[in-house]
Amino acid sequence: MKHKKNISSNLISIHKAHMQNAFKNANKGTNKVYPNPFVGAVIVKAGKIMGEGYHEECGKAHAEVNAIRMAQTHAKGADLYVTLEPCSTYGRTPPCTTAIAEAGIKRVFFGAYDSNKKNRKKAEMALKTKNIETVFIDFQKTNDELNRVFLHNLTSKIPYVILKAAISLDGKIMDSKGKSKWITGAQSRTAAHQIRQLSDGIIIGANTFNKDNPKLTVRLAGNQKFKDPAKIIISASGNLKTNNELLSKNTKGEVIIFTSEPVSAKLRKNIKNNNCIVVSMGKALKQISLKGCLTYLKKRGYHNLLVEGGAKLLGQFIKLKLFNELHLYVAPKFFGGNKGSFCGDKTLFTVNNKTFLKLDKIKQINNDLYLEYRNVYRNNKSLK
Amino acid sequence: MKHKKNISSNLISIHKAHMQNAFKNANKGTNKVYPNPFVGAVIVKAGKIMGEGYHEECGKAHAEVNAIRMAQTHAKGADLYVTLEPCSTYGRTPPCTTAIAEAGIKRVFFGAYDSNKKNRKKAEMALKTKNIETVFIDFQKTNDELNRVFLHNLTSKIPYVILKAAISLDGKIMDSKGKSKWITGAQSRTAAHQIRQLSDGIIIGANTFNKDNPKLTVRLAGNQKFKDPAKIIISASGNLKTNNELLSKNTKGEVIIFTSEPVSAKLRKNIKNNNCIVVSMGKALKQISLKGCLTYLKKRGYHNLLVEGGAKLLGQFIKLKLFNELHLYVAPKFFGGNKGSFCGDKTLFTVNNKTFLKLDKIKQINNDLYLEYRNVYRNNKSLK
Repeated sequence: MKHKKNISSNLISIHKAHMQNAFKNANKGTNKVYPNPFVGAVIVKAGKIMGEGYHEECGKAHAEVNAIRMAQTHAKGADLYVTLEPCSTYGRTPPCTTAIAEAGIKRVFFGAYDSNKKNRKKAEMALKTKNIETVFIDFQKTNDELNRVFLHNLTSKIPYVILKAAISLDGKIMDSKGKSKWITGAQSRTAAHQIRQLSDGIIIGANTFNKDNPKLTVRLAGNQKFKDPAKIIISASGNLKTNNELLSKNTKGEVIIFTSEPVSAKLRKNIKNNNCIVVSMGKALKQISLKGCLTYLKKRGYHNLLVEGGAKLLGQFIKLKLFNELHLYVAPKFFGGNKGSFCGDKTLFTVNNKTFLKLDKIKQINNDLYLEYRNVYRNNKSLK
Repeated sequence: MKHKKNISSNLISIHKAHMQNAFKNANKGTNKVYPNPFVGAVIVKAGKIMGEGYHEECGKAHAEVNAIRMAQTHAKGADLYVTLEPCSTYGRTPPCTTAIAEAGIKRVFFGAYDSNKKNRKKAEMALKTKNIETVFIDFQKTNDELNRVFLHNLTSKIPYVILKAAISLDGKIMDSKGKSKWITGAQSRTAAHQIRQLSDGIIIGANTFNKDNPKLTVRLAGNQKFKDPAKIIISASGNLKTNNELLSKNTKGEVIIFTSEPVSAKLRKNIKNNNCIVVSMGKALKQISLKGCLTYLKKRGYHNLLVEGGAKLLGQFIKLKLFNELHLYVAPKFFGGNKGSFCGDKTLFTVNNKTFLKLDKIKQINNDLYLEYRNVYRNNKSLK
């Protein structure tokens, strides 16, 4: 069977619609999927959906297999739509091409090629030998956008990093009295929790730790499908309040404190969370190497980190251009004063410095505004 | 002829399309139209456009008359689409209802009622007696949005005020070296000139006058249709540089300096522009009453003012909520530091203060973002 390039336009729109449904399924993936990509699948026979599936967790069944399991015997003679070229090699699970053939699938439509060049087009070959037709419908861009965290982690030594701030129109994260609850509306805060939920680690600075005493939990219905993101604190001085929520037994997920020695005995004693580790990044440092922290976190298995502040830490990440995305929730408020800028009070760039951000998404959330910027500098592979 | 409420839906969409063209014409109005509203018209016979017109300048012909002049004898038996109920009284020009009847127009479609309750529905009456059918197609909202400056000025003792700033993502109008050329891209600056062109006065503070030495001209092709906006400087101290562009003979349009006495003899001597006036707002004031300036300007015939900065002046307008719209051009840049906020360094509002802005328009201009906010507080008629 040859890779077909021409299908009639009516048919194409039907195939595309099925593929879009496969992508909807892929989007159900959680932060348990890392380091794998998000993949979704749909099985269709005589125009009816017989099975659907997505990759739910690294090490568990792939999307195709989940869809086949749901379709049961109806998979025989059916079409499979899968967002990504099926795997054809033994990894954590057996090859999907085998499962597809065993289920009696007639045709396989896939939306994107494997990002690993060694495996690319191998599925087509494997399926061809089993007399299964393969059709590529070009959703490569959709897939690459969906799997940007995965793709970044394939080649980068540091995790994908998102900076997030809720600000006033004059760019501040607090009013002149230091209050920040709440700048944006309830709906914006829910949207921010959805991003938090997809991350596998949330990074904060010492000031936020001490001042806000945050729980950094995901407060959304249906969150039990996700794993609790790690809570990561960066504090050169190690002067952290000892009665903090994040040190308590109740905190779920790993807690990592990056610091410069020594950490007080009192602090160590107050760490009641068995999943808390203190990582020394060198002695007597005024500022900890953020790149060093990120490299450590990548090695420890983190792929998608969210930096929530405070302003000083956000400013450091910005100054180093050490992030992939910037998410701003902008409330129609003015605080005034000369403090509280979301990127701290250190000088960053000048009017003449080349812009390294691309405006990627704009969304109105009630009276707030959501802005999503991509760091062009960081996302340029040659600069990783 | 009775006011018709039911026309078949096909016909309605055609009538609406003609009315939309009438609004396109109305939009051609310039700052010479104030204090009149923007009005546009189209004359249609047998599906063909026979004439088009808009109100070009206060005191000159109305839109309907301009369209009739273009249509010549083709106006006979034709339909007239006009954005606003035609005038039926003698004002600066004779009543349009008379011109409409004399031209032999058969039907008049209008999109909005006269905002003056005394005149409302009078056109329908006047035309009815002349056996001309009238049909109201509801474009009232479109008209009220188009003519918001006009409507505001009908009841307010101060002109319509727009605040404008080009800022970085951290809300600054200059980098830490004080440089502001250029924060936003060329296309954003062109868009800002289009707003400047529609205003009849541009307000700046003393710092901007002294530091930037701006011309405040409109640099756009086709600008000769517009009148030069006045240049208005607010300076309590009167410490203004004497070799400033705005004081030179070349400056077109009125120049108004609001100040607190005394103004130096040197400054007075250097005013080479015969259209420059110095208005004293009281002796030894630390801060001039902005409301006083605006009241003065309204009495002097100004209707639509644009405040371009600097930050201190913008902050004062914001603190007093003394504006109708806020236009922000946001560049994807970070300057950092603790100076240069677009609304100055004085404390403004707190997290708990009720928001008085409504996000009205969002537009991406290349990599910049244009945000248009309306001041709900100011635009609430009860608060004028």
